[in-house]
Amino acid sequence: MKSYGEFCSLSRALDVVGDRWTMLVVRELLVGPSRYSDLHKALPGIATNLLASRLRALEEAGVVAATDAPAPVSARVYSLTEWGRGLQRPLVELARWGVPLMSAGTGEDHSRGRWLVFAIMALFPEPAATQEDSGVPAVTVRIDADGDSLLLVSDPTGVRASVTSAGEPAEVIVAGSSEEVFRTLSGDRTEGPHAHVTGDADALRRFFALTSSALTARPRESI
Amino acid sequence: MKSYGEFCSLSRALDVVGDRWTMLVVRELLVGPSRYSDLHKALPGIATNLLASRLRALEEAGVVAATDAPAPVSARVYSLTEWGRGLQRPLVELARWGVPLMSAGTGEDHSRGRWLVFAIMALFPEPAATQEDSGVPAVTVRIDADGDSLLLVSDPTGVRASVTSAGEPAEVIVAGSSEEVFRTLSGDRTEGPHAHVTGDADALRRFFALTSSALTARPRESI
Repeated sequence: MKSYGEFCSLSRALDVVGDRWTMLVVRELLVGPSRYSDLHKALPGIATNLLASRLRALEEAGVVAATDAPAPVSARVYSLTEWGRGLQRPLVELARWGVPLMSAGTGEDHSRGRWLVFAIMALFPEPAATQEDSGVPAVTVRIDADGDSLLLVSDPTGVRASVTSAGEPAEVIVAGSSEEVFRTLSGDRTEGPHAHVTGDADALRRFFALTSSALTARPRESI
Repeated sequence: MKSYGEFCSLSRALDVVGDRWTMLVVRELLVGPSRYSDLHKALPGIATNLLASRLRALEEAGVVAATDAPAPVSARVYSLTEWGRGLQRPLVELARWGVPLMSAGTGEDHSRGRWLVFAIMALFPEPAATQEDSGVPAVTVRIDADGDSLLLVSDPTGVRASVTSAGEPAEVIVAGSSEEVFRTLSGDRTEGPHAHVTGDADALRRFFALTSSALTARPRESI
């Protein structure tokens, strides 16, 4: 990255993460530690030498750490350092700002079920270190979207989502394309197809109480 | 901007503001509406045709609005739309993440007093719409840095800063280079020259209570 050469903490942050693709690499690592080949698959259109150079720059800056996983994985695994994880808040805020841009639908764009993990961080309050009540109802939800399965666990401290295995048990099952699932999770009442949702009446009531709170609760305060 | 072509609200936000220089143009407009020539001066190193193309793209995306100011200004003035002002939170969060990168000092980098307006947004809680008590002490501070004058007004609802005229009266006067002023405002206790600070004892006590709270209070919640 060519430095902006400015004594400004925004410019200096952008010197580290402002290059094309870099924030999307960080988004993938916020979803979870990842092998090079999985990162490459998760970022459609990134050139493999560009991904390598972005990872190297992030390692040098202290945002990403690479470790060699033992057999049977036997591969370098990339993860965020503690400072790197601090990018979650600015990236989630940027994603929240971008939510209106989602109403245009998928169109010709790529979609990945795993990106919904990041969308869920933007839509709902995260679990806070302090166990104050965020007011979200408790419910477990499995999301099957575009070939990926996600588990969403909501309780009064906040909402957490992660990639899970197909068939993971949950109170509510949400299935559809990423676009349909996003429309359903965000409580979008405009025209357009929604995901297929199954569960017992009590679990569904809690699920829809959760989706109707999307984007209205801000991420909570913590240092 | 070449679109990432991803159904993800972070990617779509970056399709709008992810280009090199774009977020710094937005930073300048968060400080206040600006003429083209002033924007160009405020962003050392940006090519004039690049600035024009970034502004055009931001206008087309609905982030920036251009209006013709009447005489004696008689110039196009660029400002953020309401949606564009929504970028303050993600950019301030990114700037907060970048604060550790400031400890290296200015070095060969450009510095502008007016960038401290943005630094102040990152260091202190902003005034909230709801008038809850942020716990910051009330004090007015004029900052003279690198040829610019800023007025910082702090009260229990939060801290606001803006560019002002030289000689603006205030309880506390802080003078020095941007680096010295940043070190003083951020309550940095490491080695390095600080700004020169004058005021009566009571005002100085409130000023230092403010600076010792830097970065510890998170921006408050509001929609």
